[in-house]
Parts: sequence; C-alpha cells; structure tokens
Amino acid sequence: MKKTIICAFVVLQATFTWAQQAIFGAKAVVSPEIHEDKSVTFKIKDSLANTIAIVGDWLPRNGYAVEPAKMTKNEEGVWTYTSTPLTSDLHTYQIKVDGLITTDPSNPFVVRDVATLYNMFIVPGGNANEYLVQNVLHGTVSKRWYKSTGLDMQRRLSVYTPAGYENSKENYPVLYLLHGAGGDEDAWLALGRAAQILDNLIAQGKVKPMIVIMPNGNVIQQAAPGEGIKGFYQPQFMMPKTMNGTYEETFNDVMNFVAANYRIKKGKENTAIAGLSMGGYHSLHISRYYPNTFNYVGLFSAATLPTKDKISPVYEHIDETLKKQKNNGYKLYWIGIGKNDFLYKSNQEFKQKLDSLGMKYEYHESDGGHEWTNWRDYLILFLPKLFK
Amino acid sequence: MKKTIICAFVVLQATFTWAQQAIFGAKAVVSPEIHEDKSVTFKIKDSLANTIAIVGDWLPRNGYAVEPAKMTKNEEGVWTYTSTPLTSDLHTYQIKVDGLITTDPSNPFVVRDVATLYNMFIVPGGNANEYLVQNVLHGTVSKRWYKSTGLDMQRRLSVYTPAGYENSKENYPVLYLLHGAGGDEDAWLALGRAAQILDNLIAQGKVKPMIVIMPNGNVIQQAAPGEGIKGFYQPQFMMPKTMNGTYEETFNDVMNFVAANYRIKKGKENTAIAGLSMGGYHSLHISRYYPNTFNYVGLFSAATLPTKDKISPVYEHIDETLKKQKNNGYKLYWIGIGKNDFLYKSNQEFKQKLDSLGMKYEYHESDGGHEWTNWRDYLILFLPKLFK
Repeated sequence: MKKTIICAFVVLQATFTWAQQAIFGAKAVVSPEIHEDKSVTFKIKDSLANTIAIVGDWLPRNGYAVEPAKMTKNEEGVWTYTSTPLTSDLHTYQIKVDGLITTDPSNPFVVRDVATLYNMFIVPGGNANEYLVQNVLHGTVSKRWYKSTGLDMQRRLSVYTPAGYENSKENYPVLYLLHGAGGDEDAWLALGRAAQILDNLIAQGKVKPMIVIMPNGNVIQQAAPGEGIKGFYQPQFMMPKTMNGTYEETFNDVMNFVAANYRIKKGKENTAIAGLSMGGYHSLHISRYYPNTFNYVGLFSAATLPTKDKISPVYEHIDETLKKQKNNGYKLYWIGIGKNDFLYKSNQEFKQKLDSLGMKYEYHESDGGHEWTNWRDYLILFLPKLFK
Repeated sequence: MKKTIICAFVVLQATFTWAQQAIFGAKAVVSPEIHEDKSVTFKIKDSLANTIAIVGDWLPRNGYAVEPAKMTKNEEGVWTYTSTPLTSDLHTYQIKVDGLITTDPSNPFVVRDVATLYNMFIVPGGNANEYLVQNVLHGTVSKRWYKSTGLDMQRRLSVYTPAGYENSKENYPVLYLLHGAGGDEDAWLALGRAAQILDNLIAQGKVKPMIVIMPNGNVIQQAAPGEGIKGFYQPQFMMPKTMNGTYEETFNDVMNFVAANYRIKKGKENTAIAGLSMGGYHSLHISRYYPNTFNYVGLFSAATLPTKDKISPVYEHIDETLKKQKNNGYKLYWIGIGKNDFLYKSNQEFKQKLDSLGMKYEYHESDGGHEWTNWRDYLILFLPKLFK
C-alpha cells in the first residue's frame, strides 16, 4: 500500500508544472549551513555568473562598505564560501552576482530593513539562544487595527500576549515597545525577535508575563508597507512628521485602545515604554508628555538629538515636563548605547541634561553601534527589570 | 526650525554606515511599476551581468519551463522590461541574473512557496480588488499555539477574527481553511490573501462575519518553517504522514481548542471546512471522519486521488462514512477545479463516486490549473454561500 502512495506522489510531481505554481521548489544545495564551530558555509548552485560573493554583516569593512567575500566554483559548478566562526547572533547577508546585490535563492528566510530584503540565519549560543523558538509555551502574536482619533486613521499594531493570557482572568502589565525610523509594527517581531525573547525569558521565570504592544510610529502610515491602503510601495527611511510631536500627542489613542481591549493592570507601576533609535526618542518624549503614566522607560540607542536648541516642537517645555516626570516619580529610566553608535555623543549630552535636572537613570554602555544586535541585547537586559 | 530638523537628519544619514544596519536602503529605481493599462515595468539598476531576465507567472511556457523575458540595458545602465497588459491578479516573478534565479532587489514584497521566494505585486481590477487592503474595517490576524494531544505537540495556527469581534459579546460561525502540500498556517494569508478577502467581502455585506481558522496540516510540523523548534531549515514539499489519516484523526484537537478559546456559534449549521489541494483532501476526509460536524464543505482543486483502491489508510470505510455524512445532512458540498488542473480527472472520478452515493454537490469548473489565482477565486465564490 505504501508503494501506491509513493506512486501517486510521483505522478503528482511529474505532472506538476511551473504553470501550476512552483510547489516543487526544493533546491539542490543547502545554504547557509551552520557548523559546530559557528563557521557558516554558503552555496549557490551553478550559474553563468563570472563572480558571486557574500555580503554579510560580519565581514570586514572598507570605509563604510562591506568587503564582499568571494565564493569559489567547484567542479560540480557549485559556488561555495565558508566564513570564519561567527558570533552567536542573528546575522543578515545578501549575495552579489556580477555586481547585483540580491538574496540567496536557497535561503527563504528573509527580513526586511526599510526597503531591502536580507537573508537571515541565527548562530546559536549566548543571547542568540533567546532568539530561537525553544520548547516552551508560546504567547500569541496578533496584528490588530485601532482607530486613531488624533491621526484620523485606522492603524495597525502588533500585540504579544503571553502564554496563558487567553485562558486566565488575570490582568497583566503592559510594555509599549517602539521601532526606529524606517521600521514599523513588524520590526521588533522580525528583526528584534521580541516574541521569542519574551517566550523564553518568561518561561525561565526571569521576566514577568506581560502584554507587549508594538505600534506603528510613522504617523503618516496606517501600517507596515504593503499592509495598508497605500498598497505596495517602496518603503522609505524618512517619514515626515514622525519627530515633531504628533506621535507623542496622539499616543493616548494607542493607550486607550489597549485599556479598552486587553486585561491590563492599570497604573504606572504596571506600565512601561521603550524603543530603539527613533522609538527611543518617542519613548523619551511620550513618557514626559504623559508624565505620570510610565514607571519604566527604556531608551535603546535613542535619537535624543541635540536638546539645547529646540529643533522640533516636541522639545518645547522639555525641562518642565521632565521635572514633572521626576516629581511624579518613576522606578527606572534606562539608557543603553553602543560605544560606536553615531548617537553616542548626543546620548551623553542627554545624560548631562538628566543629571542637571537630578533625574536618576540606569546607564548601560555596550560595544558596537546602532544595530539590532544591541537592541535585542538591551531588550534582554531591560525586560527582567520590569514590574518587580 | 524646519531647516534644523532637516540638518539633523542629514547628519544622521551621513554618519550612518552599513555597519550600523542598513536603514538607508532606498533604491535608485522603482520596480515593479504597474501602469494604467495593466502592463508592468521592471527595472534593475546597473550591474555587471551579461544578461538579466524576468521570470514571471504570466509569461509563455516552453513545455514546463517559463520563457524568461530578457531585459535591456539603457545608456544609464538601467535594465528594463515592460510586460504586455497583465490580468488583474496577484502575480509572482523572479529575476534571472546570468543564469541565477533570485529576487528583484528593488521589490521587498515577497511570498514564499515551499522553499522559494517570489517577488509579488497585485494588478488591480476584478477579484484582485478584494486582495488589496481597502478602506474598510479590518479583522485581527493572530498566530496562536495550541496543544495537540493527538500529535503530542505544541502547534501553531493562524486565526482571523472579523472586525468587531473583540468588542462584541456575539458568537460567530467558524470556517476551517486548510492549505495545500508544501504550505502551512501562513499560506492562506500570504498567497491566499484570505484576511483581505474576508475584510472586503464582509464590509460589502456579501459574507457573514466569521472566524477563520488556518491550521497547519503537516502533522510532523509544529509550525511554518522557521517558526517552530526545528528552526530555519529548507522547507519541503513532501511532508510524511500528512495524507495517511493522522491529521483527520487528530483534527478534534484543533476544534476543541477553537471551541474553548473563541466565541463560536456551535453546531454544524455554523461550521464549515474548506481547503486547497492537500487541504481539499483533508477537508473531504475530515468532514466524513466527523460526519455530523460540517454543514459546508469546500474542495478547491482537491487532491482526491484515485479512490477506487485504498491507497492510504484514510480511505478505509470511505463509502460508509460518506453515506453517514449524507444521511446526517449538510447544506453545501462545493467542488471547484480548473480545466487544466492535473487533478481534473480524479475530481471527475470523485464526482462519480458522490453521484453513485446520491450525495449532492455544487460543482464549479474554471479555467486554469492548480494555482493560487483559482484558489483565491474559489474562496471568493465559496464564502458568500456560508452560514445563510
């Protein structure tokens, strides 16, 4: 009987054509292949190209540009390149075929950063183990729409509810987790591995079960590119109006929606906000626009921008509102920045401002720059400090 | 003041390096560009390649293989190709660079079919307008995990709840919507545009608000590739044990989870099941394994397989259980198949079996073959018939 099943499948396969949708897309090579020693082999099947190279985030740089690693073609016509042992991390790469930079056709796992797709893989170990789906209970990830009265728009946000949320009557604390410029409500899930990190740290008992709201901080955008009524367009880095106070002013629409739709524990002792880069900027300002709302504030490589001159209307009354926030009291004001981040200096200036106002903060200085590996690390450091 | 903001951004941009994550990925060309007459222009920026071609689902075929459409390079070094006017549809394509087939680097919108990424775009008009996000209220899409006792596994499924679900106390009917071989719980959302179709048809009053459950029908798989504990691996078309009755036997785990977690209207008058290809096979068999559970059954290009000989244990007692299903009564048994589908003949044989058993069905024969454009069409035809 088994034979007959196999025969049926062979017939299925044989009669299947590209015209019938390419469901038989299995590739002859496996790429990437992560070895025990954390080196990684990439393979590209035969091509008429003159040169193929790997453009990976771990490769040395010549000025700003990555030095692509040339692949070599073997007798079977397979191009190969093996890296040195890599760091335990989520790595991204592209391939360069005769000058054209695109994706590795054997690796269907990609992440989008602004307008560019990168192939991805995860080298396990250390914090990267928290990025992987482990054998633990998993929370729910939802894409929901809410009405923003302030922006007069239906808008989309991502929600993580911890395992057990749906089958309990308990209320949960809330973290608002904000993306950077060029990101959207998908960024913390895709590049930030937020759902996996939360699942794993909650399962280990290191982090309190919480609801995490990942809204879209680009005020002219309903949703991630391709997910709103503007359809499929080339995503852009610079979103107008995202840093002029509009988002801060209308953030109560998000908070009201969450309060009306989720079993949240109310009060600032149960409310946190954190974000990376532009999301750090938003967290800084939202937490002082609503100065008695958040007991926990996290600025991850925040785009604090020079604050001495008002360069955006958002900075009006900054000192008074920060003072108000200070006087209202909070438990944690956490600043994380990499030594090589181009925002390092402005973060130091911001610290000085906090010092001058007598506002307490926790400061974490890491290696590296303005990059997701730091933001994932900062999330792993920040989450255990919340709601305790 | 505006100038200063712009300056800050310029500094931001200038100091930003690839090392700091490529958030400045804006491309110099826009590709694809859909014109008024539905022709589409593709562009690739300068490359050292000797040939670049577009491999699109609309192109003529030479036997089984698509005839790639060669791009031409202009004086500015930009490769261009403009198609003839295309059908209103979700179209997929790849690019072929010196023999290597991969993705268009200027189009970050991709769908995965088994192990292959395709760039996508939607040419509006006709049914394709239902695939687009329109200015209507949107339902919620969630990825949830449930315990399958039968498979002894935490498993992931996709859930669509219609707009208003969360803020009402009403109960809703349920459609179980199953993917094909090589697909998973993401397939109906990504390639099937199920959430957009439901949003739009519900908003137009053509379809009753309903909960749609999109489970994973590959019994050895927890979740879509990359989403389970097996991590990132090359997706395969042939999943063992998916067509031997195991899924049918354990489907009550899915139904029990849904009953316990969603406000559903109970009873077969409020329950439907439909699927494409292997999911049609699953719908056929699940509806007779649970012969008093579904008033609505949809087989979209179903892999009915020859039924005269038992080629899988799932076929045991097929006649008895179909008769039981018939005697219990149902409202709709819907079969859709394309004239050029490789399963056309086996669907005719299956119809004969139903005729011989006196089981009523609605039969829809379309043009085309075993392809998503048909499955999206069938969904649009099938949904308005439910729960009325």
